[in-house]
Amino acid sequence: MEFTSACVVGAGRVGTAVAARLSDSLPTRLTGRELETAGADLVLLCVPDRVVHEVAAAIPTGPWIGHTSGARTLDALDPHVRRFSLHPLQTFVHHRGPEQLDGAWAAVGGENREALEAGFRLADLLRLRPFELHDEDRLVYHAAAVMAQGFLVALHWAATELFEEAGAPPAALLPLMQRTMDNDFELTGPITRGDYETIERHLEVIREQRPELEPMYRALTDMMAAAVAAR
Amino acid sequence: MEFTSACVVGAGRVGTAVAARLSDSLPTRLTGRELETAGADLVLLCVPDRVVHEVAAAIPTGPWIGHTSGARTLDALDPHVRRFSLHPLQTFVHHRGPEQLDGAWAAVGGENREALEAGFRLADLLRLRPFELHDEDRLVYHAAAVMAQGFLVALHWAATELFEEAGAPPAALLPLMQRTMDNDFELTGPITRGDYETIERHLEVIREQRPELEPMYRALTDMMAAAVAAR
Repeated sequence: MEFTSACVVGAGRVGTAVAARLSDSLPTRLTGRELETAGADLVLLCVPDRVVHEVAAAIPTGPWIGHTSGARTLDALDPHVRRFSLHPLQTFVHHRGPEQLDGAWAAVGGENREALEAGFRLADLLRLRPFELHDEDRLVYHAAAVMAQGFLVALHWAATELFEEAGAPPAALLPLMQRTMDNDFELTGPITRGDYETIERHLEVIREQRPELEPMYRALTDMMAAAVAAR
Repeated sequence: MEFTSACVVGAGRVGTAVAARLSDSLPTRLTGRELETAGADLVLLCVPDRVVHEVAAAIPTGPWIGHTSGARTLDALDPHVRRFSLHPLQTFVHHRGPEQLDGAWAAVGGENREALEAGFRLADLLRLRPFELHDEDRLVYHAAAVMAQGFLVALHWAATELFEEAGAPPAALLPLMQRTMDNDFELTGPITRGDYETIERHLEVIREQRPELEPMYRALTDMMAAAVAAR
């Protein structure tokens, strides 16, 4: 399985990083909405989830076609049959380039061996670490990815709000969060000590001062208490 | 303000790291429950929250006394009056040493200038970055610290569970979480795109397959949606 030229559709954060990396290996065209895919034997759609199907349907069948959506299944690429999906499990920002792909994994979906080979080959070209993901597992996978990115942002946001409320420097949260990751997420603090009196006092003060954060605080402590108890 | 010798009470994870670092600068004794504090002009209690008061009350007054609890206020050190608190905002594990203090911040509490100076001086000796925290802000501060450590562990745990459910490698979560931190917690994904249809589908599948995770998922998406809308 070798591709000889690629067309990346969608010049957003993922599309620009992917096209830049692909162009190290093969002639690559990056297009916006022009859809000039002629000549490419790989067309990769890096477009918003809601238009994957519409864009796929507008592209002549023939070349391999893939999408990079975490949420969309393979049938979003109808009527194409030479198709696969490759979701880079990473968060992309505008001010970084293709090095954003380094070290990241990618979920590859395909309906047969050849399609999976196409997806794994693309992962190689992008220097991503591929694993196969079945479409029926995609929703659960994607929900977890949102936890790992969006909820991490949410936690940091809420902790920052409370630090500002307490007159403490939000920058002080960063070494704590980084070390927690570096320590393989070993739990320390009141939850692991079973100190639910302290947690209840936290909930009281949050209810008084930032009531909108209480459901989150309660849900996470309940979940973690159950997980600790189940160990 | 200079200390000439120290006694660290409590040979747990914090006490051992703190005593090892302090001994770089001044004669330091690390004690368990023996409470042989004679001769030290600084006694630092690194004991479980629930026994801070009991241990403090058993120590003869005279030397400076401090505690390293995030939850306890200064009155836990009654009847001592030369007292302060210093909470290293970090997570400590048994298999690491005093280098765990590097880069971390510390919340210092004291009832007068001299007490704050004592706390800041200790922070210097421990090579921590100190900031003042008032006792009335301590609960909010500590709740946020639990978010940044315990809830981060909780998120990773839940995402790992879902990845295993989906047949995806949990190791793939790490580059995503690390980059999210490195990108200053810039939000990407369905929440920032306002794609609540995808979030609802996540909630459905979580309700079916791992209902115990639903309250957390709902509370965090609700909180984040409100935060995004308020921007």
